[in-house]
Amino acid sequence: MIAEPAIQALLPKWVVPVVPENEVLLNTAVVLQGERIIDIIDASELADRYPNATSKILPNHALIPGLVNAHGHSPMVLMRGLADDLPLMEWLTKHIWPTEQAFAGEDFVRAGSSLAAVEMLTGGTTCFNDNYFFPNITAEVVNTSGLRATLGLPVMNIPTIWAQDEAGYIDRGLKVVEETEPNARIGWAWAPHAPYTVTDESFVRLGDLSEGMDFKLHLHLLETAGEIDQSMAEHGSHPIDRLVNLGLYNDRLIAAHMTQLSDDQVAQTAEAGVHILHCPAANMKLASGFCRVDDLDQAGANIAIGTDGAASNNRLDMFAEMRLASLIAKGFSLNPVAAPAARSLSMATIQGAKALGLDADIGSIEVGKQADLVAIDLDAPGTTPVHNVISHLVYVVSRSQVSDVWVAGKVCVSDGDVVTLDQEAVVRESIKWGLKMHSKQKDKSSI
Amino acid sequence: MIAEPAIQALLPKWVVPVVPENEVLLNTAVVLQGERIIDIIDASELADRYPNATSKILPNHALIPGLVNAHGHSPMVLMRGLADDLPLMEWLTKHIWPTEQAFAGEDFVRAGSSLAAVEMLTGGTTCFNDNYFFPNITAEVVNTSGLRATLGLPVMNIPTIWAQDEAGYIDRGLKVVEETEPNARIGWAWAPHAPYTVTDESFVRLGDLSEGMDFKLHLHLLETAGEIDQSMAEHGSHPIDRLVNLGLYNDRLIAAHMTQLSDDQVAQTAEAGVHILHCPAANMKLASGFCRVDDLDQAGANIAIGTDGAASNNRLDMFAEMRLASLIAKGFSLNPVAAPAARSLSMATIQGAKALGLDADIGSIEVGKQADLVAIDLDAPGTTPVHNVISHLVYVVSRSQVSDVWVAGKVCVSDGDVVTLDQEAVVRESIKWGLKMHSKQKDKSSI
Repeated sequence: MIAEPAIQALLPKWVVPVVPENEVLLNTAVVLQGERIIDIIDASELADRYPNATSKILPNHALIPGLVNAHGHSPMVLMRGLADDLPLMEWLTKHIWPTEQAFAGEDFVRAGSSLAAVEMLTGGTTCFNDNYFFPNITAEVVNTSGLRATLGLPVMNIPTIWAQDEAGYIDRGLKVVEETEPNARIGWAWAPHAPYTVTDESFVRLGDLSEGMDFKLHLHLLETAGEIDQSMAEHGSHPIDRLVNLGLYNDRLIAAHMTQLSDDQVAQTAEAGVHILHCPAANMKLASGFCRVDDLDQAGANIAIGTDGAASNNRLDMFAEMRLASLIAKGFSLNPVAAPAARSLSMATIQGAKALGLDADIGSIEVGKQADLVAIDLDAPGTTPVHNVISHLVYVVSRSQVSDVWVAGKVCVSDGDVVTLDQEAVVRESIKWGLKMHSKQKDKSSI
Repeated sequence: MIAEPAIQALLPKWVVPVVPENEVLLNTAVVLQGERIIDIIDASELADRYPNATSKILPNHALIPGLVNAHGHSPMVLMRGLADDLPLMEWLTKHIWPTEQAFAGEDFVRAGSSLAAVEMLTGGTTCFNDNYFFPNITAEVVNTSGLRATLGLPVMNIPTIWAQDEAGYIDRGLKVVEETEPNARIGWAWAPHAPYTVTDESFVRLGDLSEGMDFKLHLHLLETAGEIDQSMAEHGSHPIDRLVNLGLYNDRLIAAHMTQLSDDQVAQTAEAGVHILHCPAANMKLASGFCRVDDLDQAGANIAIGTDGAASNNRLDMFAEMRLASLIAKGFSLNPVAAPAARSLSMATIQGAKALGLDADIGSIEVGKQADLVAIDLDAPGTTPVHNVISHLVYVVSRSQVSDVWVAGKVCVSDGDVVTLDQEAVVRESIKWGLKMHSKQKDKSSI
């Protein structure tokens, strides 16, 4: 006979369940058993209803669903700050791509994904949607760290260390899925890079594969205006029209950036059910343009929030990203009511879960859902006084205020530190990679 | 015979002096005596040159000049999150002004300024430019906390607890200056609220007073587009033309916001030497518009950075503000080279000092300047690896990484906590004010 998992009750000062939006529960116990939330009750009923539960009191804390980082390239944390304040093409061709060519192998991906896992977990992110080479290695890190992820299987028509041509990328992706031990916390997505690096033929094949395997299609789309001109020249059509013609502009598509939408395309995108992975910091840092968050939101589109890679952010900080999402939605639309705090919190949780097809299981604090939870300590000068908890979560809280994180009921962060990985060893290893990259740069400059 | 002050050497991993811009010094000792920086030398020379100096090793730290928060209303921290996501006029007339009317007396200002002092000091801000009622009370807090400040003497044609009419405001301001014990860390400015709340007559008088007393003139200017229409209707001229005609559009003017400049006015403002107090978060949160940072910078204008009050930010966090300044300058101008990290750091330090007329004394790490210094611990997952210290300071560092702060050579923050004020008591007192404001709101809603 197998013993039932123990029952644990969390007793925070505030519970922000996210569903329903803009609700705050006081005097509430969130009851966990194994991986799941089994009850949400008035704290006064706890002793009667669950006499054997252990209790964790979180006296100055808000408890929220784990944050979902909807678009990123986790190993790129090793390149954060390597090259900033540069035009996109100079940044890519003179810094990012040569660095990747020189370093981005299995060990780099392991070190980078591990650092990203530490950074994301300690910042309250419990699930992330990634796209990078060696997703099999990132899967190992996800497995060990306790995180949840949707890992992209990259495809593009540019030869790299991962594959030589599109068919090679697809073969390697199929092999990764086949060879990785199944893990309920890991899902896969096909990740064609962008319309300008993927052929029609491969898009069609990936459409079929995605449908057959029930995977999402994770694509960079309309990041910059130049992409549209290029598509008109090469394909005689706008990237959206091309995707429509290829049968891919639907709710399986999760599209990062989307900064270049016309009024008609806002309506079309909402209608089609395409999910938008909004990356406010990266879009501004690379001067790509603004995503029309307020208009898309009003049209009923599902918008999630992502950090993008740390080379263009330069952090994997969903608290910073939520704040920015609200601020620039208002600033850009000149509408102070756009993207209120509760909506940005939804975009960073339940709407991210929805984009990844995981909203039945994560993204809110509801009975029956996975216990992906984050406790934030609001007892700090910067979050005093507390007139409105949800406002503070979006406009004021720093990720350093995250105290405890659970994923699928398992403690991953305790008292601000990751307990599933050797955090110090991960940081040391990353410092070594930094030094290695420096000495390479020096070699080049001395030639 | 009075003993000479002891000599202390700080030995951080990196020194970022800000002047010259974009420089990083390694193996460097910053030598302090009393209030001042007396030397900056190679660390290897320390034992020979200053054999009696005590040393403080900052092994993983960057040392930067103290941050200058160039525009704010410090006591408004007590209203942070009280009302968000609202149109400007509803926010002001239904929430902020009624709350101020009910609460903003001496005790409120003392509690609020104290909380702001704790928040700013722990976040690396060593000097702030303020504008609020009871600047005499804020001066007491500045004195005790060890901070440095330029305190505005408010003037407007709206009756408040502070004064009934413009003449009354001016009288009260003169009295505050006369009655406050002189303190080298405290300066004053005349602070006419905005062109739409101050008459020509008072502007002229304040121009004369400012010149006679050698004070700056601290003004909200062109925060929103509506302000221009109103000025055309009431005065028959644009606010800038009106200020020019009144003889006030010159380098004594420090103008907050400035989101509505034409091409000609960008050139005119730079030429006139008017200092811009740029508040990126508040301008976006209230959907006021964008300050043309890149254009103003290229025209040679001096731009400083401020948080504005915490009711419209909602934090007094100059690290968040520097990052935002760089990000939105790029995003708005669609120029990725705009406001590079080193420039935002200058705007948050030496350029803030210049706006306040304090650049001979603060704003950079230079021999002879006041020792207003901030140590930031970069040994954290989010700031690993360190390819570029200045990039990290602007794009990645959280204020929680500030470990030590000195103002005029005196330790104000040690190991992340304020040592000049009873930080815990300040937080408790602010929580009480929060509860008081809640119960008042409940009273109103139950009527």
